[in-house]
Amino acid sequence: MPIKLKGEVNPDLNNERKKCSFNVEEMARWYHGGEKKLAEKRQRETLFLDDPDLQDDIPTSYMSHKEIYEYGVGKACKIFTKIRALQEEGKGGVDNFMAILGGMLGSGVLKEGNPMAVHFVMFLPTILGQGTTEQQVEWLGRAWSMNILGTYAQTELGHGTFIRGLETTATYDPKTEEFILNSPTITSYKWWPGGLGHTSNYAIVVAQLYTKGQCHGIHPFIVQLRDEETWAPIKGKSVEIGEIGPKLGMKGVNNGFLGFDNVRIPRKNMLMKNAKVLEDGTYIKAPSSVLTYGTMMFVRVVIIRDMANYLSKAVTIATRYSAVRRQSPIDPAKPEVQVIDHVTQQYKVFPNIAKVIIFQLTADYIWNLYNQVTSELDKGQLERLPELHAISCCLKAVITQDASNGVEQLRMACGGHGYMEASNLPNTYGMVTAACTYEGENTILLLQTARYLMKSWSQALVGDALVPTVEYLRDAIKKRSNKWDPSITGIIKALQLVAANKIRLAYEHVENRKKLGYSHEDATNLSSIELAQSADAHCRAFLVQSAYEMTRDLESTVSTSLATVLRQFIELYAVETCMKYIGDLFRFSGLTEDGVQELQQRLEDLLTKIRPNAVGFVDGFDIPDKILSSALGAYDGNVYERLFLEAKKSPLNQDPIPKAFELHMKPFMRSNL
Amino acid sequence: MPIKLKGEVNPDLNNERKKCSFNVEEMARWYHGGEKKLAEKRQRETLFLDDPDLQDDIPTSYMSHKEIYEYGVGKACKIFTKIRALQEEGKGGVDNFMAILGGMLGSGVLKEGNPMAVHFVMFLPTILGQGTTEQQVEWLGRAWSMNILGTYAQTELGHGTFIRGLETTATYDPKTEEFILNSPTITSYKWWPGGLGHTSNYAIVVAQLYTKGQCHGIHPFIVQLRDEETWAPIKGKSVEIGEIGPKLGMKGVNNGFLGFDNVRIPRKNMLMKNAKVLEDGTYIKAPSSVLTYGTMMFVRVVIIRDMANYLSKAVTIATRYSAVRRQSPIDPAKPEVQVIDHVTQQYKVFPNIAKVIIFQLTADYIWNLYNQVTSELDKGQLERLPELHAISCCLKAVITQDASNGVEQLRMACGGHGYMEASNLPNTYGMVTAACTYEGENTILLLQTARYLMKSWSQALVGDALVPTVEYLRDAIKKRSNKWDPSITGIIKALQLVAANKIRLAYEHVENRKKLGYSHEDATNLSSIELAQSADAHCRAFLVQSAYEMTRDLESTVSTSLATVLRQFIELYAVETCMKYIGDLFRFSGLTEDGVQELQQRLEDLLTKIRPNAVGFVDGFDIPDKILSSALGAYDGNVYERLFLEAKKSPLNQDPIPKAFELHMKPFMRSNL
Repeated sequence: MPIKLKGEVNPDLNNERKKCSFNVEEMARWYHGGEKKLAEKRQRETLFLDDPDLQDDIPTSYMSHKEIYEYGVGKACKIFTKIRALQEEGKGGVDNFMAILGGMLGSGVLKEGNPMAVHFVMFLPTILGQGTTEQQVEWLGRAWSMNILGTYAQTELGHGTFIRGLETTATYDPKTEEFILNSPTITSYKWWPGGLGHTSNYAIVVAQLYTKGQCHGIHPFIVQLRDEETWAPIKGKSVEIGEIGPKLGMKGVNNGFLGFDNVRIPRKNMLMKNAKVLEDGTYIKAPSSVLTYGTMMFVRVVIIRDMANYLSKAVTIATRYSAVRRQSPIDPAKPEVQVIDHVTQQYKVFPNIAKVIIFQLTADYIWNLYNQVTSELDKGQLERLPELHAISCCLKAVITQDASNGVEQLRMACGGHGYMEASNLPNTYGMVTAACTYEGENTILLLQTARYLMKSWSQALVGDALVPTVEYLRDAIKKRSNKWDPSITGIIKALQLVAANKIRLAYEHVENRKKLGYSHEDATNLSSIELAQSADAHCRAFLVQSAYEMTRDLESTVSTSLATVLRQFIELYAVETCMKYIGDLFRFSGLTEDGVQELQQRLEDLLTKIRPNAVGFVDGFDIPDKILSSALGAYDGNVYERLFLEAKKSPLNQDPIPKAFELHMKPFMRSNL
Repeated sequence: MPIKLKGEVNPDLNNERKKCSFNVEEMARWYHGGEKKLAEKRQRETLFLDDPDLQDDIPTSYMSHKEIYEYGVGKACKIFTKIRALQEEGKGGVDNFMAILGGMLGSGVLKEGNPMAVHFVMFLPTILGQGTTEQQVEWLGRAWSMNILGTYAQTELGHGTFIRGLETTATYDPKTEEFILNSPTITSYKWWPGGLGHTSNYAIVVAQLYTKGQCHGIHPFIVQLRDEETWAPIKGKSVEIGEIGPKLGMKGVNNGFLGFDNVRIPRKNMLMKNAKVLEDGTYIKAPSSVLTYGTMMFVRVVIIRDMANYLSKAVTIATRYSAVRRQSPIDPAKPEVQVIDHVTQQYKVFPNIAKVIIFQLTADYIWNLYNQVTSELDKGQLERLPELHAISCCLKAVITQDASNGVEQLRMACGGHGYMEASNLPNTYGMVTAACTYEGENTILLLQTARYLMKSWSQALVGDALVPTVEYLRDAIKKRSNKWDPSITGIIKALQLVAANKIRLAYEHVENRKKLGYSHEDATNLSSIELAQSADAHCRAFLVQSAYEMTRDLESTVSTSLATVLRQFIELYAVETCMKYIGDLFRFSGLTEDGVQELQQRLEDLLTKIRPNAVGFVDGFDIPDKILSSALGAYDGNVYERLFLEAKKSPLNQDPIPKAFELHMKPFMRSNL
């Protein structure tokens, strides 16, 4: 049977789209921030995705580790060449870079990640943020033009989230006015930086600064790694450099290792916008450590958006496939139904659609908050910085974990076919789960938020003023429980009560342990399960609340038909959150057995209401087929034809008789005849 | 720095092992079923793992899809040649096959799966179980000697767990006394069978049997796929055959597709031990459908053991790494501590150690039950068969899901390094998560158990006798709630009360919907979230109970010191189960706020008690380094050296300057100078 695409949309998907009660184009406009932004997005997608020079003949999943790298570098060079050319024509500037490096278009053109991404995401911004004007003049031009390629080398083989523990040393030698870089132990080798393996000739290296015999903690230095002409690693007293090997995902990123043996760099290569080392080795402290918060906050907002993006891909794939796939009749006397008609399937898929909306709204909310706080910063007001830091820590932890779990749940909701690379779900999981450990391991981040919450609780206890995100603690001190109120605002209050009580319990248990003679630190460690859970609860309440607040005026910006559906998803998220925290709600919010059964009924009703709009709604995420890269998720729903066409690309399918037959099987099968 | 292994055990691991309060060798004996079995296991491991012909120069994770296949076939041939030779020497027979095909030794010698496994696991057993004596005589000898290689082709592109929906047809032609096989649609193509792509020349094909114009449902047929001499696919009116492409895991299994265009096979190729087709096309029904249950039950027990095996690998890796890795001080004034000293880490790792024990005990329990039921079967007693089927469905679903989640949790507990293939955790996840969808998709299995539970509940309502696994429903009808009792037997009772009440609610909600006018089928679908959850709850109670019962006489078989630790893990499992079902326990078991806080305290106390024994305990799983295949998990704990040595194997690290520099980067970086 010669398999080919029929060029028609699967009739099941056509039917689904006819059922849709709102305007999909309006949804796309709303989701992408308005008509203009949507048009720009689409234009950019056409520009890159339809470029004949940027098409892939064979999926990376057929390639070896080395081939994936070579393909990735080649394609990255083509892409950046194109962006340069566009810039020269005056067509788009930074926007193109942002899109190509970001989770959506970027993941469409380079599914295994971009080996040059760290150059733009970390190398350039660090010089911009921490370099002096002279240093910016010296480095930025060449870096921006990509005449040099840089990476950001912080993490070490033995040291991750706890950066004070880094071991690489940069010792100032006033005689030559140089820093001498060393990797004193195996655990001090840099390990993980993207593009470090073979794709960078410079790095920002974060090292412990020693001058006049004293350690001043970690500082950033620009270090050359490879010759600009020959690309050979720096020789002599040298760097040892290579790539760290294959990973679960991000296989094209060329993560590398780096060790120093007395490598000398000029004094001016220390980034000195903040702290300084003078010619004679005198160390001058940075005026404030506040400045570095900005980049971290920005990166966290980007991560939250990325999570929404990846989850939107996975849920578009799973929703469409669930509408096409037929499996098991509901009534044994009738044919197999669309999988999406099984309520258990709806329960796997629809809450993940809701999460995409919630994460996007939260990203917007926190972005607004960030801008508000930085504008206050400019006026010298630092009050809200710790608050912003605390909420961003738990948001990063909770959202990356939920997105990661969501993508896997959706993959499994696609049954066996979800296990195939052709579904693009394994690849998507590889990208999204990485975020659970990078930029701060999630449990450590929750504990950072918890530390803030403990302080807030103690302030609440003595009646101090509280900042907005923890203001709810004040009420909780007065009134530990409540009458269950199932409205959205009631649910927000209930989740806040849960958070407050979990914060209180964690606080009390730390204090009790201190009374038993434990140090504050040991007491905190012994109570850390409850501490992490209190931060999680705080975050859950915040997520429902921020989504609710961001959509309060929804009806003034979108049609009633769209607003209705959006509100259904927000309600679904709130109800599903309750279902997951039934125990805590029972303990602290006055929830009763009747309340639980009402929630269950409401959950089921919402799934039924959402059912006819599900396909239309994910269509509204407006993700082109070339970004979805999924046989199961394409707009036309020709799932089986596409699976077949992907399999036909297999190098193993090019020969009817495998090489392994003559080589291995034939001799083996006959050796005992 | 020239990196090499020091040949010494990491001092942190040495300290851990000194702390151990029980005899690790005794634990290994207990875990592996006694001294004799342990010795045999070790002997077999030495035989295969230390064989110089079976060593891998380069990890499969560096290879391309095609290379992984060719490597896999080559190694499988070597391994089976060796087993044959051992057989001829009289050294081991079926045991070697079982071990090599199983999850433990098998995963050590062929990390990406064995492309010939289905030949032994499905092809041979099906002929044995469903072939007539004549058919066994004709096929078994050649198959057992591997002069032919077979697979089992059931699943189709459009049809998985619901096997009645299969579309492949086998139409009997009495004129020639042949069956004509056809794949009438794209969705009818066989898709997924292991080894089907290029590694088999025969298949058991499951097809809808048509004779005299009537369909008699699905039956198994032996079909030749490739020429025995040339390995060329059967020509003419032909088969279309190939492999389905890359997957999340099991990359060496060579899953294939297969389509038929009027392929004729002789009548005698239908496996006719049960149903028959006579020369003239007369169809004779099978006397009983009970016979096929046996294989399915056996496979499920194997899956449960596999899950315990994979989880034991992951948890050995994570426990040892947590003892070596140092990250974040507890007291900021002191150095970074072993990660295992962070209580949040203990909470990620130790409950997964407990799950290994619970799953093993449950596998033994269900294996005993299976043997009891089959011996009853032989006496014509079929009463317990549906019960066994029901409990095996939910156990398969719950245990594969928990093992899968456990492996991922452990991978993330190893931070960034867990993301590396060198940890062997991504590979382990790829193997373990596949079990969530194969051999029955998990949600469908839970709903099958739920159907049984609904019937049991209605029997309980009218006072009918109940079989042992649902006997608890009788009490629950009389008394819906209880006073909270935190002993293990109290916890089992509480979990049973939870299950009974969830079963009751699901039952009532189905009935209510029927009263509202829904058909039984629609009412069941609309209530299916609660139905699936009721099966889950039933299974949770069973898991704690079976582990408890299997260890009731523990002290009579092992020393007190070992029994103490084993009981701690079983208690930890019970308490952790409670913590995850707090809401349900509040609703149905009389749990109070004080009870929750006591459970939390008990959980934390158990973690503290287990802490000094953790490394020793996983040592007792007795998994050789070559099976762990993990830089993070090796017995000597030289984590960083091993990570480095793995990275050095990268083909990209063999050249200081990557090919991509001259080819792509250099022209690009200079094009705008």
